[in-house]
Amino acid sequence: MNTYFVVPQSTHNQLVENAYRHRGYTAQEASDGARFCELASTHGIRTHNAIKAIHLDELFGSKVGGCKPGATIEKLPGRFKAVQRWNANRKLGQSVAFEAMDCCMKMADEYGAGIVTVDNAFHYLWGGGYVINAAKKGYIAYTCCTAGTSEVVPFMGKHPTMGTNPHSWAFPTQDQIGFPICIDWATSTVAMGRVQQLAREGKQLPPGAAVDAEGQPTTDPARAKWLLFFGQHKGYGLALVNELLAAFTGSGIPFLRGKWNEGPAGEKHTPHFFFQCIKAEALSCDNFPCGRNQKTNVQAVIKDILGHGNDKVMLPGQLEAEGARLTQQHGGLLFTKAEMDAFAEMARECGASPWKESDFKQVSI
Amino acid sequence: MNTYFVVPQSTHNQLVENAYRHRGYTAQEASDGARFCELASTHGIRTHNAIKAIHLDELFGSKVGGCKPGATIEKLPGRFKAVQRWNANRKLGQSVAFEAMDCCMKMADEYGAGIVTVDNAFHYLWGGGYVINAAKKGYIAYTCCTAGTSEVVPFMGKHPTMGTNPHSWAFPTQDQIGFPICIDWATSTVAMGRVQQLAREGKQLPPGAAVDAEGQPTTDPARAKWLLFFGQHKGYGLALVNELLAAFTGSGIPFLRGKWNEGPAGEKHTPHFFFQCIKAEALSCDNFPCGRNQKTNVQAVIKDILGHGNDKVMLPGQLEAEGARLTQQHGGLLFTKAEMDAFAEMARECGASPWKESDFKQVSI
Repeated sequence: MNTYFVVPQSTHNQLVENAYRHRGYTAQEASDGARFCELASTHGIRTHNAIKAIHLDELFGSKVGGCKPGATIEKLPGRFKAVQRWNANRKLGQSVAFEAMDCCMKMADEYGAGIVTVDNAFHYLWGGGYVINAAKKGYIAYTCCTAGTSEVVPFMGKHPTMGTNPHSWAFPTQDQIGFPICIDWATSTVAMGRVQQLAREGKQLPPGAAVDAEGQPTTDPARAKWLLFFGQHKGYGLALVNELLAAFTGSGIPFLRGKWNEGPAGEKHTPHFFFQCIKAEALSCDNFPCGRNQKTNVQAVIKDILGHGNDKVMLPGQLEAEGARLTQQHGGLLFTKAEMDAFAEMARECGASPWKESDFKQVSI
Repeated sequence: MNTYFVVPQSTHNQLVENAYRHRGYTAQEASDGARFCELASTHGIRTHNAIKAIHLDELFGSKVGGCKPGATIEKLPGRFKAVQRWNANRKLGQSVAFEAMDCCMKMADEYGAGIVTVDNAFHYLWGGGYVINAAKKGYIAYTCCTAGTSEVVPFMGKHPTMGTNPHSWAFPTQDQIGFPICIDWATSTVAMGRVQQLAREGKQLPPGAAVDAEGQPTTDPARAKWLLFFGQHKGYGLALVNELLAAFTGSGIPFLRGKWNEGPAGEKHTPHFFFQCIKAEALSCDNFPCGRNQKTNVQAVIKDILGHGNDKVMLPGQLEAEGARLTQQHGGLLFTKAEMDAFAEMARECGASPWKESDFKQVSI
């Protein structure tokens, strides 16, 4: 059992908006930023909540020029009607991602599928949030991005010339199983934050997760310097997909990503976003077996995968759905004591009214 | 050094066409089938060449109704202009896949991207071939399919309710590095053929590749009964992508795939194909760093990934490109003695003129 503080969504969002406004972001950006952090915390995502969002802005965002408050997205004209090309001009990642996914859905309504590729982006935090949102509206949604910095060694290599390049897919399965199936992970075996956590706890890394400063594989988190891709050449290949989509769009060389003071003048240091939506009904061949329709067919397929004694098998997105259920059950976002301390600090920093633990209900889960 | 027989493409294709014609396929299907097998063997793909193609037809194709010679693809009308839905009516997989990829390219020319989703399909052999072909024409190409049978246990499960569901991506990088980068693999750690090979050779499986009849992990290929996905929940998630695209399109329940005599009447037993092309120029934001253009930017990115001492790092598609180089160097497709025996048998079976080793040049490589 852990104790959590129950924070009403409106209270959370007001603080996060204040924090973004204090950093110079527009009202719309602050609202998008808060809305996204609410989405993450609603689903129990602790690694990419408001605390991480403001921390990212501090380290890589408005303070150092990686993100530009009030920037305008430049939507390039083009003759291809199902693909849009945007220059985000380093606008807040959450604002760009929400708008890009909306745009993909509109294109999908007309053409069956739509893509937005985004140059000059900033971090969008948790790709799963955007695809879950789109799946809930009836789309098969996908996003990938290049990570903000290069810390992963390509398969058979020694030097970290790639990022943790994540992929996120979601499918509109909420009517069948109560939540959208969401496949969402980085291509590195573990995140650098996990390495640091294991080092603090004196635990070992799984094999194939990291190398030391000499490029030799290690399971000792204290000696781990760089990450490895999951699944050897397969994870490396998946990470190349993000990097090549970025390269064809306009990103610079990967080793210099996020390193604003390195490399030649004129090189780019920004990440890239890629979004796609497919309208679920656009895929239907209208000939489902045994008299099923698209929804009941998807349900039958999922039931079969989890059947035959596979009762321990989980569906990707299930943990996030369980997070959302707990949020609903307790009537607010759930935060730990350490997270509440971080919110109190956030409130002090942006001059909001003091954040007092005693103002919030506590629950044991 | 191994000895290979050098078989001129036209000689190879004529035999393969004869073999398909003998099995009742149309001239166009036989030509597509042969062209595809040439493509695979050109790239050194030994697992999915003509011998495998005819073997597949024998076991799962025209002999048992899984594939229907002379079938007509039904292209369903629809209002979504960048997505086509096809009922392949179990037509030969190579014919369907070539035509679907051509259709994706045409849609991409007009809309920037195009998708073809295919219900009632048969095996298309090697997804890499189709995406490499499209990449050579300037497209970022992708395909995935559901495998013909369920032999992989989902993560945390005990029963094989899923297939080896492969994914294939290719990028038009031939002008930069001489070949399209092609990321192409199954989502199982190894293929069942590999398990059988290791059993014959008395070798062990890698950990996480297979389970025994009781669903317990094993590295003993003799006890291995079912396969596992690579990368635990990540490979499982990737395989779910194929299965869900299939379910939304019209495929039946996965455990019954390929099992024509099991399950209720009206259930489907066919695999599903998904194809997508994006026109490379449709992604360009026209603002490449340091005065580079799209091509030189992609080149700079690839060079950086392989730089910084990463000289042992390979690019996916490099082995296939080396295969193609050897084919060109020796002026024909390269086959082993065992493969030549299989071709001789194929010639006997279809009543073609005898296939004599002495008619072919030999090389040591």
